[in-house]
Amino acid sequence: MTARERRSVDVVVVGAGLAGLTAARRLQERGRSVLVLEARDRVGGRTLNHDLGDGQVVESGGQFVGPTQDRVLALATELGVDTFRAHDDGDTVYVHGKAVRRFSGDIPPAWTTLPDLGLLMARLDRAVRRIDLDAPWRSPDAHRLDAMTTASWARSLSLGGGAVEVLEILLGSAYGTTAAETSALFTLWYVAGAGDETHRGTLDRMIGVDGGAQESRFVGGSHRLSALLAADLGDAVVLDAPVRRIEQDASGARVSTDHLDVDAQHVVVAVPPHLVAGIDLEPALPAPQAELFRRMTFGTLMKCEAVYDEPFWRADGLSGQGLFRGDAEPVCSMFDNTPPSGAPGVLMGFLGAHAWKTWADRPAAQRRGAVLRSFARVVGPRALEPTDYWEQDWTTEPWTRGGPTAVLAPGVLTELGPWRDVPHGRVHWAGAEHANHWNGYMDGAVRTGEDVADLITRTTRHEETA
Amino acid sequence: MTARERRSVDVVVVGAGLAGLTAARRLQERGRSVLVLEARDRVGGRTLNHDLGDGQVVESGGQFVGPTQDRVLALATELGVDTFRAHDDGDTVYVHGKAVRRFSGDIPPAWTTLPDLGLLMARLDRAVRRIDLDAPWRSPDAHRLDAMTTASWARSLSLGGGAVEVLEILLGSAYGTTAAETSALFTLWYVAGAGDETHRGTLDRMIGVDGGAQESRFVGGSHRLSALLAADLGDAVVLDAPVRRIEQDASGARVSTDHLDVDAQHVVVAVPPHLVAGIDLEPALPAPQAELFRRMTFGTLMKCEAVYDEPFWRADGLSGQGLFRGDAEPVCSMFDNTPPSGAPGVLMGFLGAHAWKTWADRPAAQRRGAVLRSFARVVGPRALEPTDYWEQDWTTEPWTRGGPTAVLAPGVLTELGPWRDVPHGRVHWAGAEHANHWNGYMDGAVRTGEDVADLITRTTRHEETA
Repeated sequence: MTARERRSVDVVVVGAGLAGLTAARRLQERGRSVLVLEARDRVGGRTLNHDLGDGQVVESGGQFVGPTQDRVLALATELGVDTFRAHDDGDTVYVHGKAVRRFSGDIPPAWTTLPDLGLLMARLDRAVRRIDLDAPWRSPDAHRLDAMTTASWARSLSLGGGAVEVLEILLGSAYGTTAAETSALFTLWYVAGAGDETHRGTLDRMIGVDGGAQESRFVGGSHRLSALLAADLGDAVVLDAPVRRIEQDASGARVSTDHLDVDAQHVVVAVPPHLVAGIDLEPALPAPQAELFRRMTFGTLMKCEAVYDEPFWRADGLSGQGLFRGDAEPVCSMFDNTPPSGAPGVLMGFLGAHAWKTWADRPAAQRRGAVLRSFARVVGPRALEPTDYWEQDWTTEPWTRGGPTAVLAPGVLTELGPWRDVPHGRVHWAGAEHANHWNGYMDGAVRTGEDVADLITRTTRHEETA
Repeated sequence: MTARERRSVDVVVVGAGLAGLTAARRLQERGRSVLVLEARDRVGGRTLNHDLGDGQVVESGGQFVGPTQDRVLALATELGVDTFRAHDDGDTVYVHGKAVRRFSGDIPPAWTTLPDLGLLMARLDRAVRRIDLDAPWRSPDAHRLDAMTTASWARSLSLGGGAVEVLEILLGSAYGTTAAETSALFTLWYVAGAGDETHRGTLDRMIGVDGGAQESRFVGGSHRLSALLAADLGDAVVLDAPVRRIEQDASGARVSTDHLDVDAQHVVVAVPPHLVAGIDLEPALPAPQAELFRRMTFGTLMKCEAVYDEPFWRADGLSGQGLFRGDAEPVCSMFDNTPPSGAPGVLMGFLGAHAWKTWADRPAAQRRGAVLRSFARVVGPRALEPTDYWEQDWTTEPWTRGGPTAVLAPGVLTELGPWRDVPHGRVHWAGAEHANHWNGYMDGAVRTGEDVADLITRTTRHEETA
C-alpha cells in the first residue's frame, strides 16, 4: 500500500476538459496555484483526435466551430491554433426512404414542398426570441412549454408529420435525442443560446454550415486546444486521478483521489453534471441540486468515420454532406471530414437518438455495413470500401456517459433549473452544460471556464503563493 | 491493509431490500448457497421503521398494502406478520387555497363539481385498459403516448385545469413527480399495473384506501418482513458491503466489495436501476441497457411525520386523511399513521414532486412549521404541537437517491424499455422497478425476487453445495 500523497494549492480543478483547463490556466495567470485532477489518462474530455498517420488527424468528438463562438475562437487564436472552413462546396444529398435527391444550398427542395416546415421554422424562431436565456424558467409561458415535449410543441402547431420528422433530423444531430424525449422549453432555450451576447440564437446558426456552427474546424484537430492548455499547465495536470471525495469546512476544502489528498481554498468541478453523483461530497449538495444533476442525462450520439484515399465525392460535385429522414438509416446526417490537406478523404456520420437505440448494441460489423451503405447512398458505391473505419460511442465512455451534452426532459428546467450554477460553498461549477451561450458546445465550455476563474479571482483575496 | 477475503457461493444477491432478500431466501430453500451483499448498515431498502418507544413503530418508507398485492401478503403470512386496516373512519378534509372542506367517502364533493374530473378518470381508466402491461411499447398508440407528458395527455382531453391539478395530487403522492415530468405512456402503464394477473389495474385501486393500495398496514411495520427474511438467512447477509465491481466470464462471476471477493455462478442485482451505474461491470452492460438504467431516475418524495399523545382527530370524527390541491401547501396528501394499538397518534404527510423542489432545501424548522400548519388545516390547531416530528427524505439516501420509485420521462419506455429485464450474462435483475404488477411497490419487489429465483433455479442444474 503506497502512502497517500498530500498537496496544497489555491484551487483544485476537477476535470481536464476544455472548461477545466481554461479555468486552470486563467487562474494560474492571475497568480493562483492550481492543480487539475483528471480521471482519464488524457486531457480533452469530449474532444479527441484520431490519428490518420502522416501527422494528420480527424476528430472523434467535438470538432466544429462557427460565428459567434467568440470565446473558443479567441482561445484558439491565443494558443496559435488556426481554423479552416469545413468543406461545403458541391451538392448535398437528401435521402428519404427510396428517394435520393441532390441539391445545392442549405435546404433540400423536398423540404420546401413541405409547407408546414417553413411554418415550423418560423414559429420556432419566434418562440426562441421570447426565451429568457439567463433564466428560461422566467420566460413567458415557461411552465406550459416545460410541461410538454418538443414533439408535442411541434404537433401543437397543427403541422404535418413531415415537418416533425425534419425537426428530428436536426435535433438528432444537434443533441442526440428525439423530440419525444426533450422538453419544448429546453429545446427553445438551447436554440436561443446559439449566439453570443449581441446575436440571439437561431436554428439556422445552430444547424448551418456556412454562417453556422459547422462552418469551420481547427487545424490539427480540436483536441489541440486542450493539449496546448495542458502543456502550459505542465505538472499542474494530474492524469488517471478520478476524484472520489470533496470535503469542505470553514477553513478550506480537501479533494481526494485514490492516492492523493489536495487541500485548497476553492474547487472547480468541470465534469458532466450527471457524473457529480459519483463524487462523495461532504457536506452533501442541497438535495434539489443533486437531483438536477442526476436528471441532466446526456443524449446518445455516436460518430462513425470512414477513410478513403481521397475525397472522391468532390470530383463528382458533391459536398459529402447528407441528410437522412426517417428511421430506416442508422445515420441522420453526414459530413466531409477530410483534413485541410485534402487527403485522405474522410466521411463522418452522426448515429444518434432513436437510431442509436436501434443500432448501438448490434454487432459492430453489421453496424459498419449499414453506415457505409448510408454513406454510399450519398456519395456512391466507393463509400463501401474504406481503407479505415472507426466509431466513437460516447455513451460507453465511463467519464462522459453520453453525447454530446445534457438534454433535459420535461419539467426539469422549471422545477430545478435555478440550481444549475449555484456554488456549493467552496465548490464552483464549469463545463459546457453550465453555459447559457452555446450550451453543450466547446465555446460554452470555454465561457464557463473563463467565467468561473473570473468569479474566483474577483471574490477572493489574492494571496501570493507563487 | 487487511487481506481481501474470498468466498464462493452459487448465487450472489446485491442489495438486501425486499426483492433481494426474497430472492435469496427462495434460492436457499431450493438448495442454492447464497450471499447477500448490502451497502447499508441495515437491511430493508426503502422500508424503514421509526421507533416510537414502548415497542411501537411507524414507517418512514413503504408501508401500505392492499388487495391484489398477493405476493407480499403471502410472504407476510408465511413470515407470521399480520396486517391491520389503515384508519379510514371519519371525514376526510380537502384543502384548496383558503377553502377547507370536510367530506366522507373517497372523493371530495368539490371534485364532483369539476365536471372534467369525471371525464378525466373515465378516460384514464379506458386508456389504461388498452395498455399492454408486459410490453407497453407494443400498446396501441404507444409512440404517440410516450412522446407526450402526462400533463399534455390530460390537456389533450380538453379538460379544465382543475382536473389536471387533481391528477397532480394523485401522482404527486403515488410517485413523487409532476404530470409535466412523466411520460403519458408510463403513467397509464403504471396504473395498469395496480392489480394482479386477474385484475387489471385501476386508478381507484392505486389511490384508494378502502379496497385500494392504502387499505392495510403491517403489524410491527413493513420493515419486519425484511428483518425476518434476513434473520432466516443469517450469516448469508453481509452489511456495510457496497458492491464495486462484477466481473464475469465463461467460468463464472466475481462480485467485489471493498474487502471481499465472492465467486458465484449467478448474480442477482436488486438495487434501484439508476444506481447500477455505480457498479463497474466487466464486461460492460450493452450501451442501451446502461442508458435505460441511467434514465430510470426516481421521483422526489419525503415523508413527514408528527406524533401526538393520541389520535385526537378521531374524536372529532376525522379520518386524519387530507388532500391538498395547489402549490401553496408543502403536503399533497396526509394519513393517520397511528400504530394499531391506537396510541400515540401519528400523522404522516407526503411532501413530493413540485413541493419537494420548493421545500427540500429550506431550513428544517421552516419546513416543519409549514407541514404542521398543513396538518392543522385538516385536524385543527393541536397539530401544531406534536411531541415528536421527523422527516425522511429518500432523495438524500445515497443507496436510494429518490422516492418512491423510478418514474420515466417521455421517450424512455418506447426507446429503451425492452432492455429493462434482459439478463446480462450471469447477472439478473430484481427490484420493484422490474415488476409489471405493482411496479414500485413492495408487492412488485417481492414478485421480482421470487421470479428471478425461479428463473435461476429453473434454468440451471442443481449442484449440491449445502
